[in-house]
Amino acid sequence: MASGGPEIEQLIQLLARLPGLGPRSARRAVLHMVKKREQLMLPLSAALDRAVAVVRTCEVCGNIDTKSPCTICADPRRDSGMLIVVEDVSDLWALERAGVGQVNYHVLGGVLSPLDGVGPDDLTVDALIARAPDFAEIVLAVNATVEGQTTAHYITDRLAGSGLKVTRLAHGVPVGGELDYLDEGTLSQALKARTEV
Amino acid sequence: MASGGPEIEQLIQLLARLPGLGPRSARRAVLHMVKKREQLMLPLSAALDRAVAVVRTCEVCGNIDTKSPCTICADPRRDSGMLIVVEDVSDLWALERAGVGQVNYHVLGGVLSPLDGVGPDDLTVDALIARAPDFAEIVLAVNATVEGQTTAHYITDRLAGSGLKVTRLAHGVPVGGELDYLDEGTLSQALKARTEV
Ligand SMILES: [Zn+2]
Ligand SMILES: [Zn+2]
Repeated sequence: MASGGPEIEQLIQLLARLPGLGPRSARRAVLHMVKKREQLMLPLSAALDRAVAVVRTCEVCGNIDTKSPCTICADPRRDSGMLIVVEDVSDLWALERAGVGQVNYHVLGGVLSPLDGVGPDDLTVDALIARAPDFAEIVLAVNATVEGQTTAHYITDRLAGSGLKVTRLAHGVPVGGELDYLDEGTLSQALKARTEV
Repeated sequence: MASGGPEIEQLIQLLARLPGLGPRSARRAVLHMVKKREQLMLPLSAALDRAVAVVRTCEVCGNIDTKSPCTICADPRRDSGMLIVVEDVSDLWALERAGVGQVNYHVLGGVLSPLDGVGPDDLTVDALIARAPDFAEIVLAVNATVEGQTTAHYITDRLAGSGLKVTRLAHGVPVGGELDYLDEGTLSQALKARTEV
């Protein structure tokens, strides 16, 4: 028990389920919020209400935005002809922060992992194969993990014979590393030095 | 920019102001929320709304609860006659979790810190002096920091001549703590206060 009544206890328990937080840090977060009621708790509550009301997944690329097609997919200046395939929305956001250019994205929603029962139908691979011909180049920017590379091979196989140029991020991404944790310089260098597969 | 629209960006920025979170972990938290919309984002939004509506600071002790006087102050079984003085609500909650017994509390709201411009009027010292005569014993459970001890001395001085019993928490080796990691002050205090086994 948090000694603060059931409403506060429930808020702590839900916050504790966010990545990076646990019961102790969730308690500290709630106490901090309550102390900064006007400057933090009320704005946070309102921002969460608004986000819940407007947030959606882009039906084209899988990005999270307030509209579908998302801001990126609807941007006519994104005419580089490059489609960057990523595992997760966080990777898409990381590449955007790195300023990789006027590219488009496709979020797979994970990686192939037979042991965990994740097959191609659990990812957005079919949608990727369908939209790939609209682009001049498909960049496979999956993580440098075993599952990521397995997924990249599977997609390359599916695209074989399409005549599409398929590339991957340059090595320089640390083996076992996750894109989301890389600094922006490494990310944009890796894209520049991408190699054909 | 988080590539997710202004509503999501604002939610990230507010979450990043919680202790223990930064911009990166706030982004991950929001992405996790959005993916677990039904199981996490909606309940969290509702829980925060409810907490905002009901949470308040107890006018008696300074605890955070959904009523004032709080559950602890309103509990008639709390008749030990012991008033435990703490710096912060988090300390009160920690003592309750430790199951210290049917005690009462007084939250100072900080410690004296002349360098930071925190004087007695910035804390709830006057309220403490006023309610102290209702108790048989005042336990000063402030942190073992310089400011904490300065604050304890100040309160002890204010209570001098009241005839009240004033105590402080024992110094010693934390349960499960390794001697090797303790500072010398703690070690010598623990030796002085040794007990027969
Ligand atoms: Zn999109
Ligand atoms: Zn109270």
